[in-house]
Amino acid sequence: MKALVLFSGGLDSTTCLALAVSKHGAENVIALSVFYGQSHDKEIRCAKQIAEYYGVQFKTLDLAEIFSDSDCSLLSKSESDIPKESYAEQLKKTDGKPVSTYVPFRNGLFLASAASIALSNECEFIYYGAHSDDAAGNAYPDCSVDFNNAMNEAIYLGSGKQLRIEAPFVELNKADVVRIGTELKAPYKLTWSCYEGGDKPCGRCATCIDRIAAFKANGLTDPLMEV
Amino acid sequence: MKALVLFSGGLDSTTCLALAVSKHGAENVIALSVFYGQSHDKEIRCAKQIAEYYGVQFKTLDLAEIFSDSDCSLLSKSESDIPKESYAEQLKKTDGKPVSTYVPFRNGLFLASAASIALSNECEFIYYGAHSDDAAGNAYPDCSVDFNNAMNEAIYLGSGKQLRIEAPFVELNKADVVRIGTELKAPYKLTWSCYEGGDKPCGRCATCIDRIAAFKANGLTDPLMEV
Repeated sequence: MKALVLFSGGLDSTTCLALAVSKHGAENVIALSVFYGQSHDKEIRCAKQIAEYYGVQFKTLDLAEIFSDSDCSLLSKSESDIPKESYAEQLKKTDGKPVSTYVPFRNGLFLASAASIALSNECEFIYYGAHSDDAAGNAYPDCSVDFNNAMNEAIYLGSGKQLRIEAPFVELNKADVVRIGTELKAPYKLTWSCYEGGDKPCGRCATCIDRIAAFKANGLTDPLMEV
Repeated sequence: MKALVLFSGGLDSTTCLALAVSKHGAENVIALSVFYGQSHDKEIRCAKQIAEYYGVQFKTLDLAEIFSDSDCSLLSKSESDIPKESYAEQLKKTDGKPVSTYVPFRNGLFLASAASIALSNECEFIYYGAHSDDAAGNAYPDCSVDFNNAMNEAIYLGSGKQLRIEAPFVELNKADVVRIGTELKAPYKLTWSCYEGGDKPCGRCATCIDRIAAFKANGLTDPLMEV
């Protein structure tokens, strides 16, 4: 049975890819990376390297046009700065709204695109790496369990019952993701999570903060932060 | 309150646009036409004319790349012919699967894209013209009430409760759509539904057959079939 993995080249989706490869075999896995107008292409270059590492088919898709009217701070055309603080700090100021790095309905759009591509490639599953830390406090509402259940139902019914979502971490946190990936020997040294695109992660944006903490919770050092 | 209408330039979505304009006012409506690799661009040219007729903002989006692996008979690269018979006839041969003109998860993808664009343009509603005739017998599973409910839930939750779907015809049939559109004086003469892209509709593909019957059920002649 074939599977398509939504694959950014970050920590969560690399763990997801490791899991899909262990279950389905590399020859039955397609990794899909979506460009959506990020300010750098470092993630996608990392994604390509990791796909090669696993020997899976690698596809890319450019959906930047869809976000041309968005003022999300992650996008290259945005005038807002990417916040240098944790999601918890940011959420104190958003009045229950998503954080400024929320890309409008990104996971919904990526899953729907993945569904169309998966159906054309005889895949029965779409994997993605949403986890509960990202959903907390409505930071990224398209990472929540309830969103995932609804989107899974939409894809299952809208595909004529041919396709389902697998979201193996949706009820787990990022520390759990690192634990699972470490057991699967995921090549974390090749990944990129930082919202900036430098040579080394900034260590100060929310995703760097979360990632460093998730390794620490497992008694590990993030391999990208090693000197 | 602003609304985005998924707008193909066909009969159903033109009625949907007429309804959205009557409720929200033309200045608060955006019509979105998606190119997905159809064998002709007649629909989108008609869509542009109808958007001008109503004076609404008109946006286009090209998602053809997503369907590059699909063998759907509607797509320009397909080697299959578009069937010249009704959906009921086609469904006798599909063994419960969607018909050959089903574009994989098209409505799900279009609604998800519309959601991302709607959120970037302060819209609170997405309208689309799915109706029960298209959902019948699983011909187009992404037109069913159950699909719509799940997708609405996914968009509502995944947007942080900022956006909803309006599917005004999802429990009605195509004859009802024509009745509503006729009351709203929708400019049906400007629409295009035929799967072919000639000067006049072929009159023999499933969508032509359905459209002619829907006018007839209202005691009317399809204005495109008038000599």
